[in-house]
Amino acid sequence: MLKARRDGYDGHGNALVNNQHELESHQLKGSVYAEQFVSFERELAVIVVRGHDGACVTYPTVETRQDPRLHICRTVLAPTDVDAGAIARAAVEAVGGVGTFGIELFQLADGQMLINELAPRPHNSGHYTIEACSTSQFSNHVRAVLGYPLGSPAMRAKAAVMVNILGADQPGAVDVDRALRIPETYVHLYGKEPRPGRKLGHITSLGSTTDEALQRAQQAAEHLRL
Amino acid sequence: MLKARRDGYDGHGNALVNNQHELESHQLKGSVYAEQFVSFERELAVIVVRGHDGACVTYPTVETRQDPRLHICRTVLAPTDVDAGAIARAAVEAVGGVGTFGIELFQLADGQMLINELAPRPHNSGHYTIEACSTSQFSNHVRAVLGYPLGSPAMRAKAAVMVNILGADQPGAVDVDRALRIPETYVHLYGKEPRPGRKLGHITSLGSTTDEALQRAQQAAEHLRL
Repeated sequence: MLKARRDGYDGHGNALVNNQHELESHQLKGSVYAEQFVSFERELAVIVVRGHDGACVTYPTVETRQDPRLHICRTVLAPTDVDAGAIARAAVEAVGGVGTFGIELFQLADGQMLINELAPRPHNSGHYTIEACSTSQFSNHVRAVLGYPLGSPAMRAKAAVMVNILGADQPGAVDVDRALRIPETYVHLYGKEPRPGRKLGHITSLGSTTDEALQRAQQAAEHLRL
Repeated sequence: MLKARRDGYDGHGNALVNNQHELESHQLKGSVYAEQFVSFERELAVIVVRGHDGACVTYPTVETRQDPRLHICRTVLAPTDVDAGAIARAAVEAVGGVGTFGIELFQLADGQMLINELAPRPHNSGHYTIEACSTSQFSNHVRAVLGYPLGSPAMRAKAAVMVNILGADQPGAVDVDRALRIPETYVHLYGKEPRPGRKLGHITSLGSTTDEALQRAQQAAEHLRL
């Protein structure tokens, strides 16, 4: 896998290379680096916040599901049955980061977890923390940067699922009213100009299980086809 | 009790009158009205939100404790062991209100509850809903005014206590750091110019009992003597 050294995001700046010919004809701009291609079972993410004093808080490990065509995060499920907190925290400590970091990982078939990316900022995989945790990733980012003590990352709900609202190729029904009638469901619209594949907002649903929360969030998303 | 017909708040615009002489010499401005003086056991409050379509949500009944000198709300404890939701809702329906209302009540020694005030807006006695409830009084106010369905007012914590930060006569220690270290405690500072008795912010603490939450909030307030 070739990756552009700068300005990559959401799969932009990546090029899969299978042979010498593809290596020579890739379309990436600027300098690139190569990584071994990894066949993974699923993708995980962890939000870690680190203060100036080295104190860290680690949020629950979540599963992230990408849109197979757009390579954009579509769904985040919290929590998971695995704990990548220690490796995620070690990564932030290794770079001496301060503030909120989103750490993305691959979980392999043998259970091994490999770090894929460190995002040095509040991260899409942590939007669920607004409603689901004692302190959100945004609040803790401000605390970290200002040198205040960090707040608890504990989940206040049994389960939470975040679904991104991506601009549709063919916009359809937009019925905020029906979306808001779904229990424990919170709609965030960013007020951006709709464009196919663009992140226009997100929905977080809480529930007693991730299945219940997922069902609620997906149901809400069906009413928000921007 | 004489009350000014306009612009009264936080005890301003009230004058206790014990005899004909005091009635003739009161200092209230503009036209006034008279109410029978009520000797109450404690003060309660309820947030009610009503939509254009008449749908209502009623938050838990809370106890409000006033500063005896300043006549300003000092502490709000949620929930209480009594339910004034029905009378509060009936009051908002009687005036055909839309949006968030704070309804203040007196609880008498015989258990009777008398409405003292209807505040047609998000109210100090509902600030606890930001952290303690599924939907805050502010969020539901916006939903009501925009004609969206109202969100659940259910408490997400067992107990919550809000303590107002009132400007001190003699400002003392201000140590946000120590306040934020107290568990399940949220500090809101409004960025206002400090003045004795002025509402400069508030603290909400959650807990498994109101006693625990009260202890946390009061401990935090001791570090915020603005």
